[in-house]
Amino acid sequence: MRKQLFLALTLIMPVFMQVSIAENQDSLNIRKMYTEALTNPVAYKNLDYLCNKIGGRLCGSARAGEAVQYVKKLFEGMKLDTVYLQPMMVKHWERGNVGTAKLVSAKKGSKDLHVCALGTSIGTGDAGIKATVVEVHNFSELKTIGRSGIEGRIVFLNRAADESRINTFESYGGAVDQRARGAMQAARYGALAVIVRSATTAHDNFPHTGVQHYADTVKAIPAMCVSTNDADLLSSWLKDDPSLKLSMKMNCRNLPDAPGWNVIGEIRGSEHPEEVIVFGGHIDSWDLGQGAHDDGAGLVQSIEVLRLYKALGIKPKHTIRAVAFMDEEIAQEGAATYADAAKKKAEKHLAAIEADRGGDTPWGFSIDASDQQLAKIKSWKSSFNPYNIWFFEKGGSGVDIRNLKDQGTPLIGLVTDPQRYFDYHHSANDIFANVNSRELELGAAAMAELVYLIDTYGL
Amino acid sequence: MRKQLFLALTLIMPVFMQVSIAENQDSLNIRKMYTEALTNPVAYKNLDYLCNKIGGRLCGSARAGEAVQYVKKLFEGMKLDTVYLQPMMVKHWERGNVGTAKLVSAKKGSKDLHVCALGTSIGTGDAGIKATVVEVHNFSELKTIGRSGIEGRIVFLNRAADESRINTFESYGGAVDQRARGAMQAARYGALAVIVRSATTAHDNFPHTGVQHYADTVKAIPAMCVSTNDADLLSSWLKDDPSLKLSMKMNCRNLPDAPGWNVIGEIRGSEHPEEVIVFGGHIDSWDLGQGAHDDGAGLVQSIEVLRLYKALGIKPKHTIRAVAFMDEEIAQEGAATYADAAKKKAEKHLAAIEADRGGDTPWGFSIDASDQQLAKIKSWKSSFNPYNIWFFEKGGSGVDIRNLKDQGTPLIGLVTDPQRYFDYHHSANDIFANVNSRELELGAAAMAELVYLIDTYGL
Repeated sequence: MRKQLFLALTLIMPVFMQVSIAENQDSLNIRKMYTEALTNPVAYKNLDYLCNKIGGRLCGSARAGEAVQYVKKLFEGMKLDTVYLQPMMVKHWERGNVGTAKLVSAKKGSKDLHVCALGTSIGTGDAGIKATVVEVHNFSELKTIGRSGIEGRIVFLNRAADESRINTFESYGGAVDQRARGAMQAARYGALAVIVRSATTAHDNFPHTGVQHYADTVKAIPAMCVSTNDADLLSSWLKDDPSLKLSMKMNCRNLPDAPGWNVIGEIRGSEHPEEVIVFGGHIDSWDLGQGAHDDGAGLVQSIEVLRLYKALGIKPKHTIRAVAFMDEEIAQEGAATYADAAKKKAEKHLAAIEADRGGDTPWGFSIDASDQQLAKIKSWKSSFNPYNIWFFEKGGSGVDIRNLKDQGTPLIGLVTDPQRYFDYHHSANDIFANVNSRELELGAAAMAELVYLIDTYGL
Repeated sequence: MRKQLFLALTLIMPVFMQVSIAENQDSLNIRKMYTEALTNPVAYKNLDYLCNKIGGRLCGSARAGEAVQYVKKLFEGMKLDTVYLQPMMVKHWERGNVGTAKLVSAKKGSKDLHVCALGTSIGTGDAGIKATVVEVHNFSELKTIGRSGIEGRIVFLNRAADESRINTFESYGGAVDQRARGAMQAARYGALAVIVRSATTAHDNFPHTGVQHYADTVKAIPAMCVSTNDADLLSSWLKDDPSLKLSMKMNCRNLPDAPGWNVIGEIRGSEHPEEVIVFGGHIDSWDLGQGAHDDGAGLVQSIEVLRLYKALGIKPKHTIRAVAFMDEEIAQEGAATYADAAKKKAEKHLAAIEADRGGDTPWGFSIDASDQQLAKIKSWKSSFNPYNIWFFEKGGSGVDIRNLKDQGTPLIGLVTDPQRYFDYHHSANDIFANVNSRELELGAAAMAELVYLIDTYGL
């Protein structure tokens, strides 16, 4: 080797070595996060408690309050730098009995359907509602049929989720308007009630609940959903006997607003404590199942990110903060409360990450940020390669963090395998037994890795 | 636009247009394959029949024969150009009763363990075996302990699958030597029998069976496996009471070789009928569950590739052939029979694809081929993008096609999400209910897409 070259090399070597050591330390820390998550599945155990000891956590309910206390205790046990509650008032709806619906047909006989009330629906009264049924597939059919064909009847909204979509979130997105606005739209034409096909690609007997909205200007009518199998059956019976009647009964009701809380735990940054990387899932859930995938999973994964930092003794430069958001399912009061508080305190958020797409295998991240920020995250792809985290695309994040958009915060959603999610979503099938420990923990580690890279290299 | 430029453009336009039309037709055909698979889940229904009407299909058994007739009938119903059986003789092992193992400890009491015989194991005889237990974690410990510590005892092989591996196939690969060669190794030191920790990352009560091999030069001793939960329990009891005894009994036995068959169905190529693209899964399975993920899934997916071509009226240029391989689980006689026949007929295989990693969400393909062929497959990545098929890496394919390597065939394995696979693998938990219709069908469509691209653009 020539002397000059040798000298030149020794001069630049330290720089190379520093970079190499830093990269090495990063990849070691990241590897440790995955190993710790996979071999010490604390998130999975926390989810077990949340699902099997507490259960479904409808906002405003006693169980939602129990879950708040549980998460607060978890944070306190982790010896974080800051743990606090953010109080708010939330809507308080109660299902009462699960509800019944019976078909009665002179031609076909009678048949009980698998149904349940949609969230925020009023009840039917003790007498119930009994009427003939008119089937539609979209709101413009309501207009075509008109008041003469709808008044005094029950409207059956039966547009199926499109199974040919590769991403089931698109299948769901293309059907969910019937659930969210079906009652309000049908009431405009004098319908007595609506019964809505469950917004899922699954063919099963689970009714899938979810929020529905009334309009101030239209009469509130009862809104019920029916399993996809029974929606097919109802449609088939209607073809054979258009004059069949449906009897429905449910005693759900809206109560006065109740207290709710976000639960917040954080590790203060060693260099920039005033800059926050926030990540979270929601603590409330629907009541039919255990809120396991939606969103117990995202909640325990967010808590796990902090645990991984503590367990591995990694000290973040910026403040890293986990939020258990209250009331995602009905009116997102938790999201509003968090964003308002952040605005008042003029907190700077370096990034916000939401995990609310179920606890199946993590694929990567959907990123609502500038092109430059997107490019920066994509430049980290090779760090994610060993963990089969491959999806980094521009897209939506989640409803609990979207209010931070005003403050210019890059918003990021954890993307997980979507094929099974709507088999569980909002139904009695959303239980702990349907979550896989490794998949859940990999999702937590993937979030922890992204937090680590943002903390180390900025965004 | 300047005239010369315009003229130049009109001259080259037709070429562009041709390419564009071809690409368009390809992407339309590919889209149709996914849509047909997702909206008409025939593969899922076939798997239902295979699992719930036939069940576990150990090679040499009557059920394996039923499965052969079922698949042949399926092929015949599809009006393929060629359907035939390839006969062979296969090992015929029978489990008999599922087997029992009881711990008896003066200190701890007694406890029945969740166990089963390993495939090809001899039985214990009616008297069973009762002896003290020596726990080891690898074969070199056997050597260290030596004959004096092993002779007349039962060897407990208890090395856990490494849960920190991201890919569970690596976790499995690092533990399975205990199952495959534990008995042969322990017998060298005079062990009476072995009991082996199930090769899985799951913590559950299912014993996971699988093939084990005897050596001609060493005495054959009974080989049993135990669930991971009970392996932990046994290890813990041994710490408290090293002199505890294990009573084991099983009446499994090896019978004379029995007939077996590969089932083959093909659509003849319109331009190059003499060149074959082959794809397949195996028709035999272990007997404890239903052989749903292993490998009912890969089998029905391979059949589905042909069905998609027929349903959509796509005519392949090369011959496309699905093979239901017999005897993957014990001695791969089906693989040998297929490769021998291909050699004798001097068939040219353009590519061979195997689906044998479970029916969970497809990720892509593991490719054992030249760098040039690998690069060609990678150049199709964008065609796979809309379907979230992203994994295209050099790697192993599968044991049923590996014999075609001699003939220079590019070998390809369908890669699916590996996190849950070993929760099911070779256990009573490998049942139809644990397969998701959409995930299964997406795997079939991904294979069909790869077959389509190889057929259209060569390899």
